Order: sequence, then structure tokens, then C-alpha cells
Amino acid sequence: MEAVATEDTKPSPVRIALCISYFGQGFSGSQQQPDARTVEGVLIDACMRLGLFEDFRSAGFVSAGRTDAGVSARRQVVALTTSYPERVVSSLNRMLPYDCWCSGWAEVPLNFNPRYSAASRTYRYLFPGEGLDLHLMEEAVSWFIGFHDFRRIARVEEGRNPVRHILSARIFSEDGLIVFEVSGESFLWNMVRGMATLLLAAGAGVISPDRIGTLLTEAGPRIPAAPPDSLILWDVDCNILFNPLERSDKGDQKLRNEADRLRIGEKLVEWLGGDRRDLFRNKEIHDKLRHLF
Amino acid sequence: MEAVATEDTKPSPVRIALCISYFGQGFSGSQQQPDARTVEGVLIDACMRLGLFEDFRSAGFVSAGRTDAGVSARRQVVALTTSYPERVVSSLNRMLPYDCWCSGWAEVPLNFNPRYSAASRTYRYLFPGEGLDLHLMEEAVSWFIGFHDFRRIARVEEGRNPVRHILSARIFSEDGLIVFEVSGESFLWNMVRGMATLLLAAGAGVISPDRIGTLLTEAGPRIPAAPPDSLILWDVDCNILFNPLERSDKGDQKLRNEADRLRIGEKLVEWLGGDRRDLFRNKEIHDKLRHLF
Repeated sequence: MEAVATEDTKPSPVRIALCISYFGQGFSGSQQQPDARTVEGVLIDACMRLGLFEDFRSAGFVSAGRTDAGVSARRQVVALTTSYPERVVSSLNRMLPYDCWCSGWAEVPLNFNPRYSAASRTYRYLFPGEGLDLHLMEEAVSWFIGFHDFRRIARVEEGRNPVRHILSARIFSEDGLIVFEVSGESFLWNMVRGMATLLLAAGAGVISPDRIGTLLTEAGPRIPAAPPDSLILWDVDCNILFNPLERSDKGDQKLRNEADRLRIGEKLVEWLGGDRRDLFRNKEIHDKLRHLF
Repeated sequence: MEAVATEDTKPSPVRIALCISYFGQGFSGSQQQPDARTVEGVLIDACMRLGLFEDFRSAGFVSAGRTDAGVSARRQVVALTTSYPERVVSSLNRMLPYDCWCSGWAEVPLNFNPRYSAASRTYRYLFPGEGLDLHLMEEAVSWFIGFHDFRRIARVEEGRNPVRHILSARIFSEDGLIVFEVSGESFLWNMVRGMATLLLAAGAGVISPDRIGTLLTEAGPRIPAAPPDSLILWDVDCNILFNPLERSDKGDQKLRNEADRLRIGEKLVEWLGGDRRDLFRNKEIHDKLRHLF
């Protein structure tokens, strides 16, 4: 006689890591909140509709790190325990909205926690390409590398060490935009956006690039974070080789439409004259930042 | 003794024409509506705050034409009668929001009505540059030129002549986007967006370009309008030489920030993979349009 699986016969649970991407503009951040659309919220909802787990706590659902409202991610890492990993492969992306999807999965040890397994995290921050001096920003960015106390440009939770180890930091231009890329073992809350404020101030000539070194060591009021919607969590290195997953066709369509909508809006604004007056823009950044330093 | 102007001594009224630009995404169309943000609504509000007139009707406030919700304009023409035209020059743009401004003004005869004075109107419609065949669209666009009955691709109000005279129509590419530009003496409601649907169908290979000529003459259900937010009223030719007006510095800043926001969003979506799969996109247009023809 063959063994027949009954409703009571659950396959043994396995732990899986997911590589998650999202376009942050439609989310109130990554971390679950009641009555708000969050990345964890839509992921947990999709997992529950797939029957991967009934309770996210007992499934050990954990993200490698949280991102603020408006922040995007190319490779966030999430882990969960389920008896039905094949459902992730076959159906998870069909359950997810167009602006959040799973691009890879891997089986991991049952005690895997992406928060503590991440050896490093990499972020990118986008600046407008005009009105800022790339070379001044390149000079400024080198001051971040190494061990520094970042309390002046981050929110430091009670009892947390404000010293962080920055592994690499660079500035480059791409398609008329300026990109800041930074890798570190870990980051404080708002820290990358605080770095972005300093780079903006250096690029606009509000501070000299070598002022960054002294600013980080001086006591003084906290320097505010630059806007969140120019920030993307680029990568989390948990030393996992993910099996690739495809986005759903429908999600692909919608993301594509979003890209078109943005490109067309940009062209319209350019035609309407929103692309001129670089000097003025530099003045605007000056006016906004000068009082901080 | 000098003549002193009292509150009762109003200078003689003059009629002025304004060249108005707006970015349409934040407006529920150009025409006034209760409880909705419209272009005429913000213009009339700004004029009243400047004391240009007390009542828009008695001031003969008229636009050259209406645009739908989401549609932008580079040169809309508006006329009004006021005793204080100098206030337009000195202050109108400071009273207007960043997404609607006056780029020129001119004194015109007291009986001037932009609706009837416009010899021609020009629109542009933007298409994504990928997945569409530019040459097929170029072939298709020539079918619009001349006198045609456009009832199949427009909403025709009761008793209105569905025949319109198209003076010129062309397709070209700019910065990776495809631009459709069309000039006519006048247009029916939704007509340019109906033309855009036909061009999209031709560019995606859903219909052959020469099918447009027969489609316009055949009876059949109305062909729906393409989305409004890719449309811009490019010019209204009332044969007026406008004196240029500058946008306010604040408006300039905000429009500039909007351009940055769109460009950065576009880059993020591109990094997230929203720029791939052209074949798929073509299939999407196919699926959406095939049943119409």
C-alpha cells in the first residue's frame, strides 16, 4: 500500500532565504506597521495566502535590515521557515504587487538569521547631475572610509555603538546623475542619508571636502538626513548563492509602465523649461544647507 | 493741485492675453469645476488675489481650449479684462503654484476671444521609444493630414461637425522617446488621444499603417483614447507676440525638483530591471489593442 499524505502529514520544515527587490515610493518603509503599506506587510500577506506559514513569528520571518519610507531595495534579504518551499518558486511572485518581488531563493540552515549573517551592506544614493561638483564630492567621499563615529549624521538608538566600519565609498556619474555608493559592515539609522547631506554640501561648495573629517568628530546638532526617495539598498552580502526567480509577467508590465510614466513626465517637465538655470539650483542647495554648518 | 486717485477712480479696463504653461499631473483638467484643482481654478484664484477682477465672468475670462485631467500645456492662451494689467507683469507668477505659470502677456483688442481667434492648435503626444516601430508610425501618421471625419476616434458633442482639418502631423524620436506632433485648425474632444491609439496600434504591428484611412471612414464602435498624461498642448496660434514673463524663483525651484524626482525614480526603476523585455512590452500593447480592430 502507498503512503497517502493526509492534512496532518506536513513535510518537514526548511528554512529559506529570499532575495527581495522593491520600488520604495509606494511603501511606508520596510518594517511592518498596522494600517500602513509596508514591504514586510505585503510579503507576509503573500506568504500567508500561499500557505507558507500561519504566523510570521513562529515562521521566524526576519529581514536583514529595515529601510525607511520611500527607500527602494535591489537586494534585501529575508528569511522564513516553511514546509512548502516549492510554493515560493512556483507562485510567490504572482502573489506580490508589481513594486515588490522576489528575485532569488536559497535553502539555508535552520538557524539562519539574515540580520546577523550579513557581512556587509551596500547602498546607493542618487544626486541630480547638474549644479554639483563631481570632483569635490569625490574628494569628500574618501573621508567616510574606515572606522568613524557617525553620531552627528545618524539617529543612534540608546546604548548602540555610534562607531561604524565603512569598507568602501565612491562617487561616479551615470546617465547624467551622480551616484554615491557605500559599503559597510552595518549602518546606523539615517546614516547613509546623513552622508548624502554632507556630500551635497561638499558638491555645492557649502563646505570644503576636508571639513567632513572634522565635522564627524566635533560635537554639535545632528545634521539632517537627505530625502529618502533617492536611496536604494543595493546589496546585502549574506554569502548566499540565490537560485534566480523571474518576476511575474503582470508585475513586469506594471513596472515597465511605471518606468515609461516617469520618463514621459521627465520629458514634459524638460519641455516646460524645468531643466534650466543650473546656477539657481546651486543657490537653492546653498540656501538650504548653509545654516547647518 | 495734483489729481489724486481715490478708491473710486479705476483706470480704464484693458483686455490682456496670457500665455499659460502647466504640468498637468496635478490638475483635474483645465476647465473650472467645483471641489477640484483645475488650471482655470488656480488662475482665477490668483487673479482675484491680485485684484485683477472680482468676477471672472464679468472679466470675460476665457481659455483658448480645454484640456483633460492629466494633460499638460506649454502654451495655452487665456484672456481677461482688467484695470490693472501691470499687476500681471509684476506679481502674477508669485501668486501661482509651481505647476502653472504665465510665460507671456500682451494687450489685445477688447473683443478678443482666444477660443475663436486661434488659427491653429498644436499638440504633442509621447510614446515609449522601445517596442514600437518608428517607420510604421511615420507611415501611419500621414493618413491624418487633410480633412477627415474623426468621429470614430473622438467624442463628438451633439450637433458638432465631426470633420476636422489637420494641417500637419509628424512622428520623430527625441531622447529615446517617440513624439507625435499634430497641428489642426481645431480638434474634437479626445481626438488627439484617439490618434495616439491608432499610432500605437500601427507601431506595435496590430494594424497596418494604411488601415488608418479605412478605419476613419468605416462605421464601428469608438476607438478609445490613449492615456492623457503623455499629451501636451504644445501651442495655440492666436497671432499674438507675447511679452515674455519669468517664472518665480520658487516655482522654478519646485519644477526643477520635480524634474529631479522623476529622473531619479526612472533610474531606480531601471536599476530594478524595469527597462528590460522589449518583446514582452510589444506583446502587452498587442493584447490591449488587438480586440479593438
